[in-house]
Formats: sequence, C-alpha cells, structure tokens
Amino acid sequence: MKNNLIKFQNCFLSHASVTVGKKESEGPLHAFFDLIEPDEYFGCGDFESAESEMVRRNINLLLKKAKIDFCDLDVALGGDLLNQCVATSFALKDSGVPFLGLYGACTTVAESILLGSILVDRQVTENALCMASSHFCSAERQYRFPLEYGSVRTPTSQSTVTGTGAFLLTNKSSEICVLEAMAGRIVDKEVTDANNMGAAMAGAAVDTILRYFDISSFSPSDFDIIATGDLGHEGHDIAKELLKKSGFPLNSNFIDCGMLIYDKRKQDTHSGGSGCGCLASVLGSYFFKSMINGNIKRILAIGTGALLNPNTVFQKKTIPSIAHCVHICRSDI
Amino acid sequence: MKNNLIKFQNCFLSHASVTVGKKESEGPLHAFFDLIEPDEYFGCGDFESAESEMVRRNINLLLKKAKIDFCDLDVALGGDLLNQCVATSFALKDSGVPFLGLYGACTTVAESILLGSILVDRQVTENALCMASSHFCSAERQYRFPLEYGSVRTPTSQSTVTGTGAFLLTNKSSEICVLEAMAGRIVDKEVTDANNMGAAMAGAAVDTILRYFDISSFSPSDFDIIATGDLGHEGHDIAKELLKKSGFPLNSNFIDCGMLIYDKRKQDTHSGGSGCGCLASVLGSYFFKSMINGNIKRILAIGTGALLNPNTVFQKKTIPSIAHCVHICRSDI
Repeated sequence: MKNNLIKFQNCFLSHASVTVGKKESEGPLHAFFDLIEPDEYFGCGDFESAESEMVRRNINLLLKKAKIDFCDLDVALGGDLLNQCVATSFALKDSGVPFLGLYGACTTVAESILLGSILVDRQVTENALCMASSHFCSAERQYRFPLEYGSVRTPTSQSTVTGTGAFLLTNKSSEICVLEAMAGRIVDKEVTDANNMGAAMAGAAVDTILRYFDISSFSPSDFDIIATGDLGHEGHDIAKELLKKSGFPLNSNFIDCGMLIYDKRKQDTHSGGSGCGCLASVLGSYFFKSMINGNIKRILAIGTGALLNPNTVFQKKTIPSIAHCVHICRSDI
Repeated sequence: MKNNLIKFQNCFLSHASVTVGKKESEGPLHAFFDLIEPDEYFGCGDFESAESEMVRRNINLLLKKAKIDFCDLDVALGGDLLNQCVATSFALKDSGVPFLGLYGACTTVAESILLGSILVDRQVTENALCMASSHFCSAERQYRFPLEYGSVRTPTSQSTVTGTGAFLLTNKSSEICVLEAMAGRIVDKEVTDANNMGAAMAGAAVDTILRYFDISSFSPSDFDIIATGDLGHEGHDIAKELLKKSGFPLNSNFIDCGMLIYDKRKQDTHSGGSGCGCLASVLGSYFFKSMINGNIKRILAIGTGALLNPNTVFQKKTIPSIAHCVHICRSDI
C-alpha cells in the first residue's frame, strides 16, 4: 500500500449543501449555492461566531435535504482555518454526533471525504458527515489584519471564501460515488511570501497530481474536471508550468476553484478565492449539481493546503504545503 | 453502527517512542522515557521550532526502534496544540510520508490511534505512524502569556507537558494490539474558566466512559488501567464525582495521566499535566513498557480535549470538550 491510492466500492455521496456570503453570491457560481447570507455576521456578534453559525445552518440544511436528523449520523469529520478549529467544534457542540476534528489547512474538505469514505466503504460506519468552512472576516483578522485597518493587498494575494460545504457519505447507493482517494505528502518549495499562497501550494498540487496519475488506471482525459482547491490564478499558472516541465501537461479540464468562484474582472479578489471553504463551496454546489444533472460525469478534486501560521511567517520560515485528492464520479458510468 | 464502537482484529501497536523535557524527566515516570532533552529550545532559536525538533527526533527514534525508514511508512496521522498544527507539519515536511493532519485538542493521540487502527485493520494501509506533541513554552506563549511576563497561575491551572509520543501501528502480529476504539461527542458543561480545563473536560470524559461501558462487552474490572489524558487532579475529582452520581463509580484503576507525570508535592505544576503530549508521553512510556513486560495487560486510554482558543475565551464563550477512547491490550490475553 506504499503508493497510497485508496479504492472504494461502496461509498456514495448522497447529498451536499453549500452556504456562502454576499461576495460569493455575486460571483459566476451564484445560481448553484443553496443558502446565501448577505450579513457577514450571520446574525451573531463576532466573526468567529458568524462562521460557526454558517456551518450550523449549512449542516441543518444538509440534514433537511437528506431527511435525517443528527441522531441518524454516525460520525462527523471536518475542520476550518480558525485557531483550534473552533468554527467547526462550536457548530457541532449541541449535535451529539461523534466528531473527529481534522486540520489539513485548505485540504480539509478533501481530507474529510478521504477519511469519511474509508469509514463508510470499510463498513466502520454507515454514513459520514464531511465538511469544511472558512470566513473572510475571521480569517483576515487571524491571519493578516483586522478589517478595520483597511490594509492594501498584494496582486498575488487571495481572498478567503466565506463559505462552507457539507457532504453526506453513505453506503446506500445513489447517483454519485467516491471512487478513489489519495493522501498527499508535505512539499516545501521554500516559498516564504504569505501573500502568495498559490505559489507555495502549487508544488504540492503537482506532486499529488503526478503521483495519482502514476498509479491510477485513469488518465487525465477520463476526467471532465481536474480541479485544485484554491491555487488561484497565480498558483494555477505555476502548477500548469510545473506539470508541463514534468512532461505531464494538463489541458483545459484542469481548473482551480479559486478562479471559478469570483469574477476576476468585476470582483476585487486579486489572485482569486482561497480558504477551506473554497473547494468545499465549489465542490458542493457547481460540481455536485452538474454531476447530478449529468453535465459532469467524473471529477478529480485536489484539496490544496498551506501549512503555516502567522508566527512561522514572522519567523521567516518557509511555507510547506500539502494536497489530498478525491476521485468522485457518477455511479452509472 | 450508531453506537460508534469500532472493533479491530488485526491492528498491533508494535513500537512506541517518547521524548520529553527537563521537568517531565524529574517526575515519577523518569525511568520510562526514551529521550530527555534538558534544553527547552531543543537546540533551536524559538519554541515553535523546538517543538518540531522534539517531534522530529522522536519519530526518528521510533523508526530506529522499528528498524524501518520513512519510505516504509504508509501514512502518518497526528497533530499538536500550536495554531494550524505547525509543530507536526514542520516536523514531517521532509519525510515524504503521506500525512493526515488532525486537530482533536488534547485527544489528538487517541484520535490518531483510532483512525490509524481503522486504516491498518481495514487493510487500507499496512502501517500507520500515530502521534501528538505539546511544549510548555510554545503553549504558554500562544494560550496564555509569554513566559517572560512571569504571570501567576491559579490553583486549578495545569502545566502543559513538554513531550511527544509516537506509535507505530502495523498489521504484523506483535505483543500489544489495539482492540477497540470509540469517537467522542462534544460535551459542553458551560465551564468558562480557561484556567480550569479539567472541569471543562471532565464531562466529556464521563460521557465517553459511560457510552463505552454501555456498549462494550468489557467491564471496568477487566482493565488494569482506565486512564484519562489530562484532566489533572481537579478534573479527575470532578469526573469521579460525576461517575458516582451516574451510578457508575470507578475504583483505583481509574487514573489520569496529568496526575501521573508530575509529583504534586515536589513539582510546581498545580493541578497536574496537560496538553497533547501528556497522554502521548505516558501511554508511550509507562503504559507501553508496562504492557511489554506484562505488569499491565489491558488499558482503556481516554484522550480528553478542550475545544477552545484564546479568542473564544475573551469572547466569554463556554469551553466545549470531547473525549475519544482506545482499548489497548496484550495480544496474548
């Protein structure tokens, strides 16, 4: 099992729900989101509580869609970008659901689906709630500056997505299944610019893509979409270049969720979207709904995460990164 | 699978290694630790790097004991208390091992063994490296005050253990096996005192203990040791009281690693040890070695974690907690 590709035969992605903020609702994917909340506080008194409230509402929506209750859930797996992942744990605190907290930076939704699929496919649980979230305002305050400072952003910086995606995996047959997953390794390209996460993460994305296609029986042309989580415009260009130099160029089906979620020309988001909520929101809305209606049949989703905190940036350390991938497809192909 | 008890038939805990700091080496368990580093900087320039270096040395020791190399490892699972779990990710950044980052507060080592055991037992991987760490100086700076402030601690406060434990799980038969595991639920007893984590976590520990014995075929008397991770003296007393009130009193085999690791009379550690490294260090040293030599045959280890960050304390939020348990025993009983 050294190659680390995990195959599943009996794991279905039965439902997804996505809740986003105002800016995301003004982007190109607005029609695909389930819930949109224009109030960045989500009715709460602080941004951390707002993120928890967003996650809570989104999980409730997922349960409503699946017509189940918290007590029907076997396990929840997930996390977020806030210190000690408090957005997720406060959101789940009254649920009574067994909870396994994850921290995979912006890979978290991919990591949660990878682990959730193992639990369901290997009959450890009958279902699993997988999720991740991020919130622009809580992330800015924690990673950069409080919004009130009005600090100027660099061209390569990205905009943290206010959004959360929740996914219900079950062993009961449905239209979409999780077919494969592969855990990433930590890759350090010695990038030190915390305003260029895309550059830091591109190396990890490429490492995972090359490893995946080296051992999988699928080729890039088998996929309608090969989507990284949040490399943004800058990181996507670097990843394309690195893949080309590795003799493994990818074509137009290679895209990035951080590029899809905002309109680069009209929305002031610099290099694009980022954050745990970026892949989670795009996967659970545009990709999931396009798979349900048959427009997309097979997708390789690659969560990309930068493993740093503000202290390690001040300490002038490099930004190691990691990427986990999940292969999701329609069950009828 | 609603009851969430996971049983394993083919998961062995083949090796463990523990590295600790000076204070831990002066405590009652000093003879059981593998590596002791009197320099709190571990030869590095800052405490965060020190924690990573401690984790790195400890993993290297584990690999040496097991006579394997990084390339023989299928997956690593673990985390720590630092923001964004950077101690663990920086420690692993040059390893090339697929890595799944976890955040379970001080339950992390129990969560990593729970998930690692699923991977090994259900044949997803042949082995798994499971680990957790904490460092007194990096934790003080992040959660409370920089050490230079010399702030006075309250009687119920605990002392974060400078220590890390790493465990190698494999599918190859060895003297000790992981027999069962159960994921905890978030329990909120509405404690708001961040200097009394034991009180906050006691409710979660009790919830997990009661749920476990409700569904397991084992009874408390089957265990030589039922050990919580880091409730400390205060939290242990509360947990005992809560168990008694629930009609399920536990006897002298119910102990807490935070009470074992320091000498309450001689060492200035108030309510005892805490941190991810507390359970990891005691489990990998005293418990593991006592199981190898046959003095202990069966143990229920209950990781206990407080799900908060300093911001949520300032926001006067409560401290939700969680506890995961793993049942580890000699293979020959």
